[in-house]
Amino acid sequence: MPAPDGSLGVAAIGYAFMGKAHSGAWRNVGAYFDVPPVHRRLLVGRDAEAVGRAAARYGWDETATDWRSVLERDDVDIVDILTPGHLHAEIAIAALEAGKHVVVEKPLANTLAEAEAMAAAAAAAEARGQHAIVNFNYRRVPAIALAKELIDEGRIGAIRHVRASYLQDWLADPSSPMSWRLRKEQAGSGALGDLGAHIVDLVLHLTGDRIESLNGGMRTFVTRRPAGESGDGALGGSGGGGPLEEVTVDDAAWASAHLWGGGVAQLEVSRFAGGRKNGLRLELYGEHGSIAFDLERLNELEYFDARGDAGRQGFTRILVTESGHPWVNAWWPDGHIIGWEHSFTHQFAQLLGDIRDGRPSTPSFAEGLAVQRVLDAIERSAAHDGAATAP
Amino acid sequence: MPAPDGSLGVAAIGYAFMGKAHSGAWRNVGAYFDVPPVHRRLLVGRDAEAVGRAAARYGWDETATDWRSVLERDDVDIVDILTPGHLHAEIAIAALEAGKHVVVEKPLANTLAEAEAMAAAAAAAEARGQHAIVNFNYRRVPAIALAKELIDEGRIGAIRHVRASYLQDWLADPSSPMSWRLRKEQAGSGALGDLGAHIVDLVLHLTGDRIESLNGGMRTFVTRRPAGESGDGALGGSGGGGPLEEVTVDDAAWASAHLWGGGVAQLEVSRFAGGRKNGLRLELYGEHGSIAFDLERLNELEYFDARGDAGRQGFTRILVTESGHPWVNAWWPDGHIIGWEHSFTHQFAQLLGDIRDGRPSTPSFAEGLAVQRVLDAIERSAAHDGAATAP
Amino acid sequence: MPAPDGSLGVAAIGYAFMGKAHSGAWRNVGAYFDVPPVHRRLLVGRDAEAVGRAAARYGWDETATDWRSVLERDDVDIVDILTPGHLHAEIAIAALEAGKHVVVEKPLANTLAEAEAMAAAAAAAEARGQHAIVNFNYRRVPAIALAKELIDEGRIGAIRHVRASYLQDWLADPSSPMSWRLRKEQAGSGALGDLGAHIVDLVLHLTGDRIESLNGGMRTFVTRRPAGESGDGALGGSGGGGPLEEVTVDDAAWASAHLWGGGVAQLEVSRFAGGRKNGLRLELYGEHGSIAFDLERLNELEYFDARGDAGRQGFTRILVTESGHPWVNAWWPDGHIIGWEHSFTHQFAQLLGDIRDGRPSTPSFAEGLAVQRVLDAIERSAAHDGAATAP
Amino acid sequence: MPAPDGSLGVAAIGYAFMGKAHSGAWRNVGAYFDVPPVHRRLLVGRDAEAVGRAAARYGWDETATDWRSVLERDDVDIVDILTPGHLHAEIAIAALEAGKHVVVEKPLANTLAEAEAMAAAAAAAEARGQHAIVNFNYRRVPAIALAKELIDEGRIGAIRHVRASYLQDWLADPSSPMSWRLRKEQAGSGALGDLGAHIVDLVLHLTGDRIESLNGGMRTFVTRRPAGESGDGALGGSGGGGPLEEVTVDDAAWASAHLWGGGVAQLEVSRFAGGRKNGLRLELYGEHGSIAFDLERLNELEYFDARGDAGRQGFTRILVTESGHPWVNAWWPDGHIIGWEHSFTHQFAQLLGDIRDGRPSTPSFAEGLAVQRVLDAIERSAAHDGAATAP
Repeated sequence: MPAPDGSLGVAAIGYAFMGKAHSGAWRNVGAYFDVPPVHRRLLVGRDAEAVGRAAARYGWDETATDWRSVLERDDVDIVDILTPGHLHAEIAIAALEAGKHVVVEKPLANTLAEAEAMAAAAAAAEARGQHAIVNFNYRRVPAIALAKELIDEGRIGAIRHVRASYLQDWLADPSSPMSWRLRKEQAGSGALGDLGAHIVDLVLHLTGDRIESLNGGMRTFVTRRPAGESGDGALGGSGGGGPLEEVTVDDAAWASAHLWGGGVAQLEVSRFAGGRKNGLRLELYGEHGSIAFDLERLNELEYFDARGDAGRQGFTRILVTESGHPWVNAWWPDGHIIGWEHSFTHQFAQLLGDIRDGRPSTPSFAEGLAVQRVLDAIERSAAHDGAATAP
Repeated sequence: MPAPDGSLGVAAIGYAFMGKAHSGAWRNVGAYFDVPPVHRRLLVGRDAEAVGRAAARYGWDETATDWRSVLERDDVDIVDILTPGHLHAEIAIAALEAGKHVVVEKPLANTLAEAEAMAAAAAAAEARGQHAIVNFNYRRVPAIALAKELIDEGRIGAIRHVRASYLQDWLADPSSPMSWRLRKEQAGSGALGDLGAHIVDLVLHLTGDRIESLNGGMRTFVTRRPAGESGDGALGGSGGGGPLEEVTVDDAAWASAHLWGGGVAQLEVSRFAGGRKNGLRLELYGEHGSIAFDLERLNELEYFDARGDAGRQGFTRILVTESGHPWVNAWWPDGHIIGWEHSFTHQFAQLLGDIRDGRPSTPSFAEGLAVQRVLDAIERSAAHDGAATAP
Repeated sequence: MPAPDGSLGVAAIGYAFMGKAHSGAWRNVGAYFDVPPVHRRLLVGRDAEAVGRAAARYGWDETATDWRSVLERDDVDIVDILTPGHLHAEIAIAALEAGKHVVVEKPLANTLAEAEAMAAAAAAAEARGQHAIVNFNYRRVPAIALAKELIDEGRIGAIRHVRASYLQDWLADPSSPMSWRLRKEQAGSGALGDLGAHIVDLVLHLTGDRIESLNGGMRTFVTRRPAGESGDGALGGSGGGGPLEEVTVDDAAWASAHLWGGGVAQLEVSRFAGGRKNGLRLELYGEHGSIAFDLERLNELEYFDARGDAGRQGFTRILVTESGHPWVNAWWPDGHIIGWEHSFTHQFAQLLGDIRDGRPSTPSFAEGLAVQRVLDAIERSAAHDGAATAP
Repeated sequence: MPAPDGSLGVAAIGYAFMGKAHSGAWRNVGAYFDVPPVHRRLLVGRDAEAVGRAAARYGWDETATDWRSVLERDDVDIVDILTPGHLHAEIAIAALEAGKHVVVEKPLANTLAEAEAMAAAAAAAEARGQHAIVNFNYRRVPAIALAKELIDEGRIGAIRHVRASYLQDWLADPSSPMSWRLRKEQAGSGALGDLGAHIVDLVLHLTGDRIESLNGGMRTFVTRRPAGESGDGALGGSGGGGPLEEVTVDDAAWASAHLWGGGVAQLEVSRFAGGRKNGLRLELYGEHGSIAFDLERLNELEYFDARGDAGRQGFTRILVTESGHPWVNAWWPDGHIIGWEHSFTHQFAQLLGDIRDGRPSTPSFAEGLAVQRVLDAIERSAAHDGAATAP
């Protein structure tokens, strides 16, 4: 499969919001990181004209309308799956069986059964030397990676409290139209899978811990919306119909969780938090220190050192733009901030280096499955008035 | 009872942290607000020498060691009860029966039964023209009062999300000693009653709503601590004994709640959140706008107006120090901030004006009881793995 | 003069904004600090009725309409001068000659000649055991005092840059009326003396340095205003006359200064900075670290340690409310913020302790004179198109 | 010159920090904006091997070691000049004479004479239909562009105060080595030209005003540094020699300026402000409102509306990431921030659209010359103890 120069061919399936973001990362990763060359071979979408425009704009060599065509291409080494969640399992498993490395957008799948099948397929493929990751890209935000460093160095000690929320407001207006993201059969869930998957992954990743039990809840504030465009241009999109359509996913979800290591975690996600545009906020409180993060200021990390000099303690705002910070050496001088998009660039740099060096890749499908189990537990708990459940 | 000039005599029972704060408010209220004159008649505490020193410092005319002595004093109109919670009911009911106006520190009582008895006594006394309040002083922080104004004006509309937390860190160190606040028989509960009472009251007060059901949890991270000083100098304090003593209250508590009006609320309190010193934070997200508040910056309120000019929206940091802001006219020019202590000053200004003008006083014991029912529901839910309970 | 119990009698001359603030500090200082008892003997103002109301409200024993009456009172030990600046010299010198301790509001005087005479009188009086201070109260803000500690510990090293500004906006509206603060004969100058005196004092105090030369400027944006009330109720107040009156002081002033120690300082003050209500901001950049402060958040100090762990550096937000912080031990538990008014309380606590213990008091009149020389240099430079001048 | 498809060929001269940033912008502009296709033809640098590596990494078709070779290339339409400032004039004038469009990094030139010659050449070329811009890229930061919109809409009214500073700290350590940026013959000046050029341009651009006179100063804190690598990989770089080399440029500079429109401006730049990594901060105070900006949080703009509802005013933090905000429609959903690099992307999108549509391009060389005149005035004033000068 590998080219003599180690270069790798990529095919991306999906060309909407995520297609734009992934395309940019594939286009730029080699300019900033020492990784094998990447060829953007093929962009796949069901609407030939639209995918053609996207490919021209984002810089892909060819297009296709049937995702199966990527399986036969010898010049495609990596399949990057950006479809709505209900298509993840079929495509990913087929691609793994065809010997491809696979990237799947989060969440891993819409159902636990699909996620389990995918994790099994990935395990088998990894044994054959293939790589499969689920794109929890926020792990690759420099400030988050720095948080992980601080935690792994023992700087905050045993964790007592985790507070994780991801608040947006794009549905707060009841007249906002339907899209595939609001239909259970396509999206699986609403804020829970879209936003909750991110924070659950970050909680598990940062703490290195697991959830013992949780009490969860979900809420749909606006249950019917005007039928609208698919709005997302993605594979699974479809036109609207009558004047009002039922929303079949959650607008908000939450959980209180007990971690095996003794900490407690509060999780909340919403698309109804006016003024919060991309408000993923994390707080971790440990025996020796604390950490706080806000995705709207993603170049910053706040760190409290409980063992610092008495009377000089407080939260330190670290501008995570120094060459010694994770991922930053590739970029600009101190203080020159980077954008949200480069969480993808970093994730792909990681993957490409892993492929070249034969290292296992993360976030693995197994990790994606662990997240999925937590999301499933939240749904089950919510269906029983918040009764305690285990992932 | 009233003096010819309308002046009122006060007796305070308790002289530690709260005694210091209340004394200051009684001493200063008349210098800033048009209220009846107040005479600080009597400071009561069990340790004659200590209460004598406190009275001299804080400016009380006399002292006593038995709280019952205040009941007989004709020159005492208001009894201000600052003891540990297990003494609230007995003293408050006796004082009400003796015809006194009563102020009780929050939480109203340690048990629901006590709170119910107190509310009944207050209702009877109010019918006789007496005033009884539980001191949820944060209602009187200007920024909180401004939040209430904005909500009552309809500026944020129907509330979808409430996020309320009160995070401190003074117990994060496992070697911090015991105090009466960590013994259930004196304090009733830990963070739940001490901190949770505040945020539950604020949620009910600001939303004007009630909790339909909730799922709650509690946790004690450090279960044994060095026997220490009472640390608080209060009536109920007593010296330690052996080297380690069992902590019988919670270090942290939380709940997810459904409001009758359709919103959901997330509550969390802790004494283990390193770097948060007095971190009472509120966020309310409504149909038309949002509000955020942090007690560590108590002169500020953040307000998001979803109906503002497109492209010019965002959270506005209102420095709540203008003469048109609630309570502020009494103080300084714009931008000259006031301190935490004046939440008490404002509460007493309110009470004194209410007494003079014959208006009902708030927060009433009935409101205190409502808070108590929520705290009790959290405890009951926590005892059943977070199963849904109703207050 | 001293009473057997060490108690001290105070007379205050002036009863408007500053009278209210000073009265509160005299009333409360003994409740929080171990200082000699203070008796508020006499409040002086030209309007007998108004001063009577103020005395009743603020808690003074008696009133007078002629400031000279305080000189003869044996029970007055401290004369607190709160009049407009043009009266400072006459009253202060007379009080010092009468053997009183003297507090003068800043700036020390309206003219350099007056300030020099006052400093000479203070030096003579100090030799006789009297105390004389000019009330640069911001030195006593805990965060500022902590900044001074950090600097004196060498934590920021040799200072390269000082940036000090004091921005308000109460004159930004051209229709705001005249007051004594806008007449040169009473106020001496506008923003320069009112706001500039504070930041010049803080620069000199914090750096421990002196200004070698400076280039300064001044500006009056609105040159005529509606005749208004004196607005300030102070001694020098007087009613307006015709419909428009000329503003004879500056609305804004600034300077760039070279410090003898090698640093440079940028100073700016204005009453025309919309949205800045009490925006005194300081930044000091040294060889080893930096400090930032904002009076609108006066309980916080930001500190950057250039010698901290690489990659973990940043500005630390210290919430200056811990018992180990300057002045804070007298107050509340961690995180319970105090208000602007207590800069006065602390200043008086310092003075009372100094009197009791026979320590020299600061800020001395000599320090007030040093500030005055800088203000005078700014005026002289401004009068010559910003040409370099020396204080 | 134009290709049939309107595509444009670019040659960049310089491949260090700015080469990396410009390359990225040329590579990505077409993926986000509707502009003519761009071909990255030629990257020029004196070190053949280094420029070869850079071209491979950043995606340029060819390389050259002599900048004159670009003049003859018919497939090069745009010459992008990223060399040290002393080479700007020669290359830019030659490229304009050869009929090329020209981009020059700021500042326009090292001397006023060079800048004047360049502006003359650009005027002549513009008359021939060529485009010439100086890359004041911060004009294209969305928050800055939004500030310009607000100002042009009259939202802040007549401007009274401008406060502009650009603070970095990369030279604060005296042991940091020499580089071409610290040699006057190559860099022209230090912080003044590097940082000051940006803020002077922003002041002129945002206010639409001109400077009438100013008082300026400059300072070099560390006058000798270890001879070091060129560190910058740029054309003008050269190895060091002896152990210490004299710094011949300023470490910091400042000015107080009078604007013709009646406002005053305070400017300060430094490379010695510990903890400020890329701290370009702007504040504009006008009759009706105010604006504040910080480049370290470049996706945010603070706006104060003095005509807003009384009691609800304050600085609004606008997260400038909405599709209606300038430039943002090309990017991501609300709240997904972009990085510093895209100020370049936007500048080039603007230029390419201007070329296609035959619109005049900005910032013009004439505007670059206006900035240069101000920098020159600051230098002249600084050389005369801050005496008033006119640009």
